[in-house]
Amino acid sequence: MFNERIYNFSAGPSMLPLPVLQEAQRSMLNWNGSGMSVMEMSHRSSAFASIFQDTKDRLRRLMQVPEEYEILFLQGGATTQFSMVPMNLMGRTGKASYALTGNFSTKAYEEAQKFGQCLVACSSADKNHTYIPAQEALSVDRDASYFHYCANNTIYGTEWHYVPETGNVPLVCDMSSNILSKPVDVSKYGLIYAGAQKNMAPAGVTVVILRRDLAGSAPENTPVMLDYATHIKKDSMYNTPPCWCIYVLGLVAKWLEEEMGGLGAMEKVNAEKAAVLYEYLDESRLFRSSVVPADRSRMNVTFRTESAELDAQFAKEAGEAGFSNLKGHRLVGGMRASLYNAMPLAGVKALRNFMADFEKEHI
Amino acid sequence: MFNERIYNFSAGPSMLPLPVLQEAQRSMLNWNGSGMSVMEMSHRSSAFASIFQDTKDRLRRLMQVPEEYEILFLQGGATTQFSMVPMNLMGRTGKASYALTGNFSTKAYEEAQKFGQCLVACSSADKNHTYIPAQEALSVDRDASYFHYCANNTIYGTEWHYVPETGNVPLVCDMSSNILSKPVDVSKYGLIYAGAQKNMAPAGVTVVILRRDLAGSAPENTPVMLDYATHIKKDSMYNTPPCWCIYVLGLVAKWLEEEMGGLGAMEKVNAEKAAVLYEYLDESRLFRSSVVPADRSRMNVTFRTESAELDAQFAKEAGEAGFSNLKGHRLVGGMRASLYNAMPLAGVKALRNFMADFEKEHI
Repeated sequence: MFNERIYNFSAGPSMLPLPVLQEAQRSMLNWNGSGMSVMEMSHRSSAFASIFQDTKDRLRRLMQVPEEYEILFLQGGATTQFSMVPMNLMGRTGKASYALTGNFSTKAYEEAQKFGQCLVACSSADKNHTYIPAQEALSVDRDASYFHYCANNTIYGTEWHYVPETGNVPLVCDMSSNILSKPVDVSKYGLIYAGAQKNMAPAGVTVVILRRDLAGSAPENTPVMLDYATHIKKDSMYNTPPCWCIYVLGLVAKWLEEEMGGLGAMEKVNAEKAAVLYEYLDESRLFRSSVVPADRSRMNVTFRTESAELDAQFAKEAGEAGFSNLKGHRLVGGMRASLYNAMPLAGVKALRNFMADFEKEHI
Repeated sequence: MFNERIYNFSAGPSMLPLPVLQEAQRSMLNWNGSGMSVMEMSHRSSAFASIFQDTKDRLRRLMQVPEEYEILFLQGGATTQFSMVPMNLMGRTGKASYALTGNFSTKAYEEAQKFGQCLVACSSADKNHTYIPAQEALSVDRDASYFHYCANNTIYGTEWHYVPETGNVPLVCDMSSNILSKPVDVSKYGLIYAGAQKNMAPAGVTVVILRRDLAGSAPENTPVMLDYATHIKKDSMYNTPPCWCIYVLGLVAKWLEEEMGGLGAMEKVNAEKAAVLYEYLDESRLFRSSVVPADRSRMNVTFRTESAELDAQFAKEAGEAGFSNLKGHRLVGGMRASLYNAMPLAGVKALRNFMADFEKEHI
């Protein structure tokens, strides 16, 4: 039982900025003199319309989304996008290229096989996804309808630090675990998607940013909710959207714009946070990172000791001390510290100090 | 600008019980000593697992859901079920029967045509959906994979007060706007679905209750998230579920069980609330209900004056007096007062009094 808030290193759902939670708390019974909670608002009301538009405008400004791109608020998580992307985009040539650098990119590839021919553009499975293949190693089919990759691999702790060059083949990117962590040149992409529950909002909304011309050619028997054209036409309100999640996303975007200074400033903080842990790991005699230094994720820092027992003991003691969710994913074991935007630098430093103390006791 | 909470007659999203909002507010920064908000919890954590299980258990008790039925928490709203139902169930015979009693049942019918042959079991379109066809008027195809109907027609203000007899044809029911408003014999149904945002929780979770044997025969190329078997196998956690909505749904279910005395007691309150308005409407010289008395909805009371201008004036003045969202749906005009579970009897009486005062001024 904790009387105070703890440092939550969960890979997702994960920490939200404290000012966001405080504002959500304040408005719970009566948002802005409306006499009701945001959870109670008709999605067609002017009150909610203002929240919706503000959220979208802030995202567009933060990510500098060009005019020819739509911003959609959908449901079903990134996993639903694993189907929607091929259902909507594969029809052009009947095939697509997939970069396999972890669990979710591989799942996306497997799902897409239901809808066309999927080509493996690269795979890091040979070294248990501890690295990101270089541009020269990518095999991009020139007839692919799109090239799909996952920008940050939550489970393995790797991140693409470059944007693949694919010529005329549109880039499709799953940014679920690093969206809003740094500036991104949206114009390089055909479609970006991200489940909200890591860097954006509570689980339940999926943000899709797509170049408008890519939608509209889904087969006729596509389920209406899986057709991007449905949502573009109705501005994400074909049916009731996940209003509360969109509201909290708006608060997070406001926090990023007005308190953190935008994505450039946020990137610097994220780089500093990651450096605190990686520098310690590279010097530690107990803990080590197993990821190639150049491909390390700033969002998810994976590490381990030489002993699975000691790993478990560390995660347990850390949890009791208020550093929660440090146990690594079952696919890789060890530990994982997720340092999304809302994790303060102080939390990372406190974790590093806790690790150093643990090291002293066990080396 | 309202300093106090108002009576919100929105058709959905709509009012939540005050104790539910207060509890959500209290737990916002630290749920039950976890040191975090429910919005920040890993869906795999023991804290969230307890919330998830409690919500499911309460729903099962409240609705007396038999053991052979699964309770699923999905995303995408009832509209996604318009596709999932035929994709998963139509394969048995290739056709299904649909009762057309309003906007959403007709949309469900239209969507299902993508996946098989859809037969019209009945339609109330001849009288602009102001009534519910009787059992004798239903044409149930004995080879239909299922019979689909919408239990309450939010826009038109009609409600099925009987359960269709369909022999061996499984009943599929969209209960989005009257679920939890009264006891239901779940064993009569093959599948029940409901978007949460009227009687259950904020928009963003869809509850599906289905007989387990009906799942598992979707075609192989069904999108993974649209296959009921995916969600049954993983207990609604194939990917991250809409955790916050599930949490609030649990609070609503707790309120129903512990404060309102269950669905039988809730039904009595709902009947009383509806009677307050319908009795007034039947006596009023200004307002009238246009729905056949026997088929009137207890959830959505539609009414109008003889003049569209006066309707607009009434809705405007009522809104300013703290009775919000009384404007009828654009398809039917007039007014609509939605009296879901969370609307207190006092709110309905206050509305009736406001209407009576308005009547005195305008008759």
